[in-house]
Amino acid sequence: MRALIIFFCLLISGLSLTAQTEKTEDSLKIRSIYDMSLLNGKSYEWLDHLSNEIGGRLSGSFNAQKAVEYTKAELEKLGLNKVWLQPVMVPKWTRGEREFAYVQTGPGETRNVNITALGGSIATPDGGTKAKVIEVQGIEQLAEYGRENIEGKIVFYNRPMRADLIQTFESYGGCVDQRYSGAEEAAKYGAAGVIVRSMNLRLDDFPHTGSMSYGDTPVEDRIPAAAISTNDAEYLSSILKIQEDLELYFKLNCEQHEDVQSYNVIGEITGSQYPEEIMVVGGHLDSWDLGDGAHDDGAGVVQSMEVLRLMKELNYKPKRTIRVVLFMNEENGLRGGNKYAEVAESKNENHIFALESDAGGFTPRGFQFTAEDTQFARILSWKHLFKPYLIHYFELGGSGADIGPLKGNGTVLAGLRPDSQRYFDYHHASNDTFEHVNKRELELGAATMTSLIYLIDKYGLKNISTSKVERPD
Amino acid sequence: MRALIIFFCLLISGLSLTAQTEKTEDSLKIRSIYDMSLLNGKSYEWLDHLSNEIGGRLSGSFNAQKAVEYTKAELEKLGLNKVWLQPVMVPKWTRGEREFAYVQTGPGETRNVNITALGGSIATPDGGTKAKVIEVQGIEQLAEYGRENIEGKIVFYNRPMRADLIQTFESYGGCVDQRYSGAEEAAKYGAAGVIVRSMNLRLDDFPHTGSMSYGDTPVEDRIPAAAISTNDAEYLSSILKIQEDLELYFKLNCEQHEDVQSYNVIGEITGSQYPEEIMVVGGHLDSWDLGDGAHDDGAGVVQSMEVLRLMKELNYKPKRTIRVVLFMNEENGLRGGNKYAEVAESKNENHIFALESDAGGFTPRGFQFTAEDTQFARILSWKHLFKPYLIHYFELGGSGADIGPLKGNGTVLAGLRPDSQRYFDYHHASNDTFEHVNKRELELGAATMTSLIYLIDKYGLKNISTSKVERPD
Repeated sequence: MRALIIFFCLLISGLSLTAQTEKTEDSLKIRSIYDMSLLNGKSYEWLDHLSNEIGGRLSGSFNAQKAVEYTKAELEKLGLNKVWLQPVMVPKWTRGEREFAYVQTGPGETRNVNITALGGSIATPDGGTKAKVIEVQGIEQLAEYGRENIEGKIVFYNRPMRADLIQTFESYGGCVDQRYSGAEEAAKYGAAGVIVRSMNLRLDDFPHTGSMSYGDTPVEDRIPAAAISTNDAEYLSSILKIQEDLELYFKLNCEQHEDVQSYNVIGEITGSQYPEEIMVVGGHLDSWDLGDGAHDDGAGVVQSMEVLRLMKELNYKPKRTIRVVLFMNEENGLRGGNKYAEVAESKNENHIFALESDAGGFTPRGFQFTAEDTQFARILSWKHLFKPYLIHYFELGGSGADIGPLKGNGTVLAGLRPDSQRYFDYHHASNDTFEHVNKRELELGAATMTSLIYLIDKYGLKNISTSKVERPD
Repeated sequence: MRALIIFFCLLISGLSLTAQTEKTEDSLKIRSIYDMSLLNGKSYEWLDHLSNEIGGRLSGSFNAQKAVEYTKAELEKLGLNKVWLQPVMVPKWTRGEREFAYVQTGPGETRNVNITALGGSIATPDGGTKAKVIEVQGIEQLAEYGRENIEGKIVFYNRPMRADLIQTFESYGGCVDQRYSGAEEAAKYGAAGVIVRSMNLRLDDFPHTGSMSYGDTPVEDRIPAAAISTNDAEYLSSILKIQEDLELYFKLNCEQHEDVQSYNVIGEITGSQYPEEIMVVGGHLDSWDLGDGAHDDGAGVVQSMEVLRLMKELNYKPKRTIRVVLFMNEENGLRGGNKYAEVAESKNENHIFALESDAGGFTPRGFQFTAEDTQFARILSWKHLFKPYLIHYFELGGSGADIGPLKGNGTVLAGLRPDSQRYFDYHHASNDTFEHVNKRELELGAATMTSLIYLIDKYGLKNISTSKVERPD
């Protein structure tokens, strides 16, 4: 009996020694990933080029094509196994001349309003649109007012983002229907146009663009749609209280064109043991046109490229295939994400994991996942490895728009979750520029993503039940 | 036996029901604190005034006095039990005319260098100081070079902050001896002056000031000390490699004066049950003079004031005494912190807890504590209450400079720990200004501090051993 006890003790200590060694190996590997990213990172330099040499990269634009060529060329320098372009047709919408708007505060008295067309909007008539304004707190209020109060007027959606929510993406989610569907709904009541309070928690002068849709509104019934700055929304709301018949003028010069050819940019390190198990890491290459798209989503693009670069630099040879995908057209169509999933399905590819960074280049806090419970449990078992890097947020509940179409196939999806407090200060506005991205924060994000990919590559994500024995890899 | 088991079961479920109710009550209270701070906060408006109406608040300056009067007046509006000024004599150092520096790159060829005098430095001679430059990576290298290589030269301390450390305050701690003691040490080798690479992880053009000391260097041996921007440090280092006999010119116009009268500003809500148990929350009212001191430490000042305001607004009547202390002279003397502790001791006051916010108005991540293990264990038992607010960092190891002098008396000390990645981009430089503080991040910090104070007020911090029964409050 005593011999047996000793045997078990030895066995257990042997096992825990192995576990300890693994743990130390993982800690050291992750430390080396962070070191490389912070001391010899390339993400910031890439972002500088994307932002300052190329600039805003709206789908179908010359800049978007330049970004395709630049990132492909940079990926080709990394010594990956494959780099290629995946063709995808994308919508092309152009803003035209800068928009202009004012409120008529009295005879001959006007005050300019900071305005920007929403992506996908039609132009106003040549002479602009001038009409009375009706303020609403959301789409649901249209029915209350009815056609008699709305027809011929400009509907002003002014429900602000909720400041009491801690996660600003939640506040955004609770407001963005006004921007996306506001024109479609207001058109049903005969509105002459819509203006939306910018999706911004801060009071400032930047109008924030973003996508909108007319749904199945017939072409002849479509009305122009634009966003005004939060300061202007506050002003307009207050002056409407004392001057109900105030008129607002706005002029949009945008245009929808035929779809044009574009590309997802893809690079791959082919797995040494399980090449058929594919892990995707990506961001979207297109951006809005007002700023240079540094946070949305230049940051995600260069961080994803950096994941593969760090693997190569650290001479790590993944067992599984790691693919960086720079998606085209997230902002106004999601064509790149859909195309990638479609091709993957047609080739019967096995995507075990996909990670997107599309929430800005701010200090990373963790990840959100779409996964089975047992898979999530395995991921959670790695959480302690991230503690030295102040990465603490591992939650179920979401990932990223571009990788969403992969969901049907049991792929575990994840989204990097940086600190979100300032994201909507810049989102889709002319101040989404390079100087608002901090080098260290960007690099910490890239290292955090690389560390997760490293662990998944090493331990896999087989959807095992906890009672079964794991595959030894 | 069965009856006994049932009895115990009922007892346990009764206890856990009470615990559950307590927990829910705490959750709700904390939610109301965050709501009030984010929806009806006052901290940002106060910071606007401190930064934009008053500006930089160097000890002994007119602005520092204005800040004393302003914050006292604002505290008096809150309906606290007491508001008072605590006199303290502070050093007065003035910068004088703006500094100027250049390197002589060739005959008649110069390049300007962004420079700022270190706080406490003497001026250069009237005509400035012009001398050859010797670059070192730290104080320890002076002995290597010896007097023969240093005498008559300007010592250029250029060891950068380590980019691989995740906590930037650690990087700062590993570098700041060059700034603080560099002149004292170089004077021993007959140097003509010292310039220090700014304590900044980012490459930019801002020189960062900060305190320095001559130790016991005799007045006649003291040499002028200044900081240059990181970009200029990089430039200077690279040109020195090819032009070893390069000369640098710099001119400082600063002056040390007699000590002057100043004040800590103090306000208090007197505890209803244990008024003798005092909890302090504070930041420092003085700042450097280059920017407006919005992050360092306007943020901590207004957050601390907000703690008491939120308590009043939420109609919370603390059992213990809560005192806001706005310390004077943290930056170049710590006279306010020392004075406060000295008076507290002389009055035999019982400070059970002190919390300082002096790490910038960035997104709060948690706290660091100086506490006994059992006290820390109790604090850790509250950690889950902060999870909805993404507050995850509860560690032993430090607090704040101003409350440090309270340490001897068994007071539990804590420091708010905001995200530190961008702190040194602004620290002690002319870009430490209001527009670089985000309203939400500031307000989240104030709410986080208030929540901790609420819990300590409610449950106390008696240094109990886990085997003893807790005091019922």
